[in-house]
Amino acid sequence: MKSFKFTIKKKIKDRLGRAGFIETPHGTIETPAFAVVGTKGTVKSLTIEDLKVTEAQVFLANTYHLYLQPGSKLVKEAGGLHAFTGWNGPMITDSGGFQVFSLGAAYGKNITKFVKGEDAKLLPEGKKEEEEVGPKIAQIDADGVSFRSHIDGSLHYFTPEKSIEIQHDLGADIIFAFDECTSPTESLHYQKEALERTHRWAKRCLKFHKENSNGTQALFGVVQGGRFEDLRRESAQFFGELDFDGYGIGGSFIKEDIATSVRWVNETLPPEKPRHMLGIGEPLDIFAGVENGCDLFDCVAPTRNGRTGTLYTKDGKINILNARFTNDFTPLESDCECYTCKNFTKAYISHLFRAKEMLAATLASIHNVYFLNKLMKDIREAIYEDRFDELKQQFISRYYEK
Amino acid sequence: MKSFKFTIKKKIKDRLGRAGFIETPHGTIETPAFAVVGTKGTVKSLTIEDLKVTEAQVFLANTYHLYLQPGSKLVKEAGGLHAFTGWNGPMITDSGGFQVFSLGAAYGKNITKFVKGEDAKLLPEGKKEEEEVGPKIAQIDADGVSFRSHIDGSLHYFTPEKSIEIQHDLGADIIFAFDECTSPTESLHYQKEALERTHRWAKRCLKFHKENSNGTQALFGVVQGGRFEDLRRESAQFFGELDFDGYGIGGSFIKEDIATSVRWVNETLPPEKPRHMLGIGEPLDIFAGVENGCDLFDCVAPTRNGRTGTLYTKDGKINILNARFTNDFTPLESDCECYTCKNFTKAYISHLFRAKEMLAATLASIHNVYFLNKLMKDIREAIYEDRFDELKQQFISRYYEK
Repeated sequence: MKSFKFTIKKKIKDRLGRAGFIETPHGTIETPAFAVVGTKGTVKSLTIEDLKVTEAQVFLANTYHLYLQPGSKLVKEAGGLHAFTGWNGPMITDSGGFQVFSLGAAYGKNITKFVKGEDAKLLPEGKKEEEEVGPKIAQIDADGVSFRSHIDGSLHYFTPEKSIEIQHDLGADIIFAFDECTSPTESLHYQKEALERTHRWAKRCLKFHKENSNGTQALFGVVQGGRFEDLRRESAQFFGELDFDGYGIGGSFIKEDIATSVRWVNETLPPEKPRHMLGIGEPLDIFAGVENGCDLFDCVAPTRNGRTGTLYTKDGKINILNARFTNDFTPLESDCECYTCKNFTKAYISHLFRAKEMLAATLASIHNVYFLNKLMKDIREAIYEDRFDELKQQFISRYYEK
Repeated sequence: MKSFKFTIKKKIKDRLGRAGFIETPHGTIETPAFAVVGTKGTVKSLTIEDLKVTEAQVFLANTYHLYLQPGSKLVKEAGGLHAFTGWNGPMITDSGGFQVFSLGAAYGKNITKFVKGEDAKLLPEGKKEEEEVGPKIAQIDADGVSFRSHIDGSLHYFTPEKSIEIQHDLGADIIFAFDECTSPTESLHYQKEALERTHRWAKRCLKFHKENSNGTQALFGVVQGGRFEDLRRESAQFFGELDFDGYGIGGSFIKEDIATSVRWVNETLPPEKPRHMLGIGEPLDIFAGVENGCDLFDCVAPTRNGRTGTLYTKDGKINILNARFTNDFTPLESDCECYTCKNFTKAYISHLFRAKEMLAATLASIHNVYFLNKLMKDIREAIYEDRFDELKQQFISRYYEK
């Protein structure tokens, strides 16, 4: 793929981490980078102009959601996601696998998950953690997965080819192979079975992509394997030998495992291709991911937290609805350069949340997304200046000391 | 008030209408102008940057709402509404009278209104037209009105002095005398009684303002009198003789009466002071108001309509949720210069509404507010170029022809 290129400029000494840049048909991403999530083709409560002031580099939209609403054929007709959404920078779509299994999935062999933990962030509005979402019927067969829409219960069938076809229609710069995203609590037996399926599907995705791509989209394979070292290494080995443009590292991670799992994978993957750690946005995990060789991250946390009044500061998260902020006439962070901090006080943001004004979500999301983008920028600078460990220690001790 | 000045530059031949500008401590308003409504200190779903791209000149916030939440003393402590909200342009607050009577008011002599029609636009979220709002206890006495908060039912008491004191704390450039806003369906007997009260209260507002103002706020008196010519002329005569900086024209108008009522008032008021037609935003009414000598207008309609998917076009209002827009890849209006029309299609906006995304309200509100600001700009230009009647006929025949 000639319009896609990853360049490593600097490595963290004695570690897997690196800084560099990814060139795409819609611009360059300085890495390591955070991709802001716009599930349905809009980063909730933000205009494209708002996004730009957060210094967002890259926008990740969800294939599953857009396929169901407004439909990938309609997005194609609109000229693709860039034209449809107005975001002209680098764009990513995921494979839909995670949502098919988390939102649509449930019964059938070994797929009787309730939606909880990390998965709960993907629940439709109004649904609570540990609540089943509609008729959760997903059946896996060798060819793909049939599932019911969480919107209207209609029946759909995703195959590897279908996922890629949808992503071709959506037209993002980076797309992902269709994978089975297992829960980290699944048995070794089930993980193995799922991993084999993911690998078979990956080959089919690659084949379909090579035969049908217009040459402007990079295809990433998704390494799975749960919390098992041999499976993770096997999966990384498998993917590394295939002609993908980059790699995703998937799976709902268990906190304690993150650094280790990622290290197994990235020690095995070819170093010259970019790696996206899927669904990760907690600062501690970002540091672990970067240190162990990940280049891209994405998470709904900054916007989801923002909408409920949880704001990021260098001293940790705060709940702006706390009574002490009602008459606090200082910005969220006195040294933050974001639009929200440069123009508004905690008292005003607190008022907006209490008055249930939509601007509350907007100002909070701008700050939180900027906060993560700034963190990534600081990490890049620290890598270039050989002080990654110093930054990591400083940031983490302040952010988590409470 | 030295920092406040109204200049008439051009009149409509043989009519009361005029174009000019109002200088305020926070900038100049080209008149006739539309004031965008930001009830609780935010124009719903818009950032200040969004507001600027709508070419908004002036921001009207509601005294009643801000007094209850977050409290006018807190806004004062924040440095006033300009500092609190980040809007640095001209700002208006109303007297709170309209909401006290519409939202808080109910029983007592002749004040047993249900909330419906025009008033319904002021209902708290979730409340329906013709539904009573909480314990509707408002008692009028010679000194003022006691009422219960629509938020928590707490008891409050507004006097003319209290209304002005609150508006001094809020710090808008233009503030209003406390008035009793009667329904146009009230009897002549009641209208007379209410009007006398409004006049007594106006004098008290003026006195309190003169004794307590810091000299940066202009005070407008509010002419009332319902649909009765003698009362309207009497009220305009009364106010015209007092030293107000300008005038509001109040009352829930009956459609057929608008032009006539306003003409009675403006034939009587001193021509050299600006006049604000309160709560009016329908294009037909704006033309009637301008033609009959009004300089300022305000209404929640463009943002309220926007949030429910009703979009303004030169061919009348459209409901973007209509099925035919789901695959319409053209802008709302091909010749509109607003942010929404320059960047997004009907299909995308339709998708945002169907997906219940907050950006839907933002993009729709930007367009609708821009639409009204552009209409006012066109009206001003038409007045300057002696073609007001031509514009009025063209606009109205196209907008209302359906």
